[in-house]
Amino acid sequence: MARFYSVIPAGGIGSRLWPLSRASAPKFLHDLTGSGQTLLQDTVDRLTPLSTSDRILIVTGEAHRSAVMEQCPKLETKNLVLEPSPKDSTAAIALAAAILAKREPDVIIGSFAADHVITNDELFQEAVREAVNVAATGKIVTIGIEPTEPSVGFGYIKAGLRIHEAPTAREVVKFVEKPELSRAKKYVRSGKYLWNAGMFIAPASLLLEVLEDTEPELYKKVMILAEAWGTANQQSVFDNVWPTLKKIAIDYSIAEPAADIDLVAVVPAKFGWHDVGDFAAIAELQADGKPNHLAILGDVKVLSDKSNGILVSETGRLVALIGLEDVIVVDTPDALLVTTKQHAQRVKNLVDSLKTTGHSDVL
Amino acid sequence: MARFYSVIPAGGIGSRLWPLSRASAPKFLHDLTGSGQTLLQDTVDRLTPLSTSDRILIVTGEAHRSAVMEQCPKLETKNLVLEPSPKDSTAAIALAAAILAKREPDVIIGSFAADHVITNDELFQEAVREAVNVAATGKIVTIGIEPTEPSVGFGYIKAGLRIHEAPTAREVVKFVEKPELSRAKKYVRSGKYLWNAGMFIAPASLLLEVLEDTEPELYKKVMILAEAWGTANQQSVFDNVWPTLKKIAIDYSIAEPAADIDLVAVVPAKFGWHDVGDFAAIAELQADGKPNHLAILGDVKVLSDKSNGILVSETGRLVALIGLEDVIVVDTPDALLVTTKQHAQRVKNLVDSLKTTGHSDVL
Repeated sequence: MARFYSVIPAGGIGSRLWPLSRASAPKFLHDLTGSGQTLLQDTVDRLTPLSTSDRILIVTGEAHRSAVMEQCPKLETKNLVLEPSPKDSTAAIALAAAILAKREPDVIIGSFAADHVITNDELFQEAVREAVNVAATGKIVTIGIEPTEPSVGFGYIKAGLRIHEAPTAREVVKFVEKPELSRAKKYVRSGKYLWNAGMFIAPASLLLEVLEDTEPELYKKVMILAEAWGTANQQSVFDNVWPTLKKIAIDYSIAEPAADIDLVAVVPAKFGWHDVGDFAAIAELQADGKPNHLAILGDVKVLSDKSNGILVSETGRLVALIGLEDVIVVDTPDALLVTTKQHAQRVKNLVDSLKTTGHSDVL
Repeated sequence: MARFYSVIPAGGIGSRLWPLSRASAPKFLHDLTGSGQTLLQDTVDRLTPLSTSDRILIVTGEAHRSAVMEQCPKLETKNLVLEPSPKDSTAAIALAAAILAKREPDVIIGSFAADHVITNDELFQEAVREAVNVAATGKIVTIGIEPTEPSVGFGYIKAGLRIHEAPTAREVVKFVEKPELSRAKKYVRSGKYLWNAGMFIAPASLLLEVLEDTEPELYKKVMILAEAWGTANQQSVFDNVWPTLKKIAIDYSIAEPAADIDLVAVVPAKFGWHDVGDFAAIAELQADGKPNHLAILGDVKVLSDKSNGILVSETGRLVALIGLEDVIVVDTPDALLVTTKQHAQRVKNLVDSLKTTGHSDVL
């Protein structure tokens, strides 16, 4: 574990969580669990026992610099990488890998989203420790989530043979993109598929080697950026190179090609995991199986008469709900959303239409 | 018509319209039709062709003095009667009758609620003119509304024989209190019953005569108050007498007993009438039969994706509604209500529970 470094790519607005999540205050900067901490803070806390707080690196947008610094007071300045604009996950993670490999050539990095919810930190840490051990044998290791339903919202990982000497890890046969429902059902029934939660643990040098093969142009630019990082040239190099980076998810640039050459392993997770992608997911997480539950996030006076679903409030106003089934109410100072869990995914379309109808001020 | 004086009792908070209607800003001070005017202003405008603006008297709570003056700039000070506290309709209307009878012994007053909606002012005025003519023969005349459904929310009037020489007026056989649904259905089927909309047109002296018979104590106090009105003693007499007034609706103190002695007539209304008692009623009035209509009251930016019902906003925030059927959203600076048309009546219970749960600040 001495070689291990945590990397947290903190991007992604979380459009389905509008009007709570905004370009200026994306999902990871919010408390969506009622823990009293933001998802980013929860993520940092979960990783600190694995890599100590001086070995956690965050990659985020320049706009979120001060919010991230404020929420993570132990974060060291050298461990905050600021992106001038969003360039998808390969750029973020490869740049982190290159910067850290320059510092420590044999570093093993683990990349974990800033905006997911994990319900058992000990089991998570156990899984990461196993993944680090497997990664040290020259593998890219992902952590796969046992599917609880045939979701069409996640990619899947087909697990293969057990890996010798590892307690639970298996070879990865292949990654599969978000499937149709019928295919998702087959995956879940087969017992061989896990959800891809986007967690990758690997030697930084191995990630970069694969990238050099699959995306040589992007690899070259990332190495130039890492070289300039922390030097007097940083600003001018970033100004020139960053805008030209190819936007590509790490699944396509590294994970899938590496699986094709048997370089990827998976540790099946025993912990609870939620991507809390929309308000319905948050409501369900909060309800925790309790029927007719009304989840409440925020410091709000509520009078509920036979209502269930979720209420998120940032305004401190009194909110009265009467006879509402599966309702979603999100009450912010400049925008109010009312919908139902059934339509939670349509919030993204609404956000798209806000862009085209001159309401960018509330995005 | 030279004897005619309009009286507008402007009381009643309209609890079912919380959080729009408040003790400090009751129903009649709001624009619930999108006309650009409040219900009180609409009422005054509707009566002005009948009685000229110097013959319209408003009875309202002391707390609403300035709002009423502002909304009704032509209202003469002598025609604004302020109640120290709500004492139901008999006190309000009898006091107005006594004050006006003192000024003009043969005055005929017409009393019309400040918070109802009437959709054809000309037909309303025609009905009132007929009612005044019948009243001049020594009758208490009400205007009855042709029922459009077997409502259990209104009292009913059983109409009898036609009155000679009046174009449409009939004798009133009796008043009936809000019935059960089965009885309401029978009333509507029979074709003999009209809704009691609480409009009364009568010589002031006749109203007071009936009251003297039925409620001699209340009559006596009202006469004392009217005597003191506008004199140096007004304040002290009101301070002493007003709190002791019996709270009783004019239906019980005057209309029903008068009907028993064949003193009441009814003019059937041909105009559209709505008591807009709850948000569902407002939504239906606004929809005017159009299916899937989303009524919008207030200056509000709305993004609606397949939603219908009613949105009332006082905050200027952007409101986004997705996939909501018959929704009611009422967005005010310190309180937000979300419910459905089906539960519109339950808003009253909610207001009651606000009183008992320490939220009187938003009432």
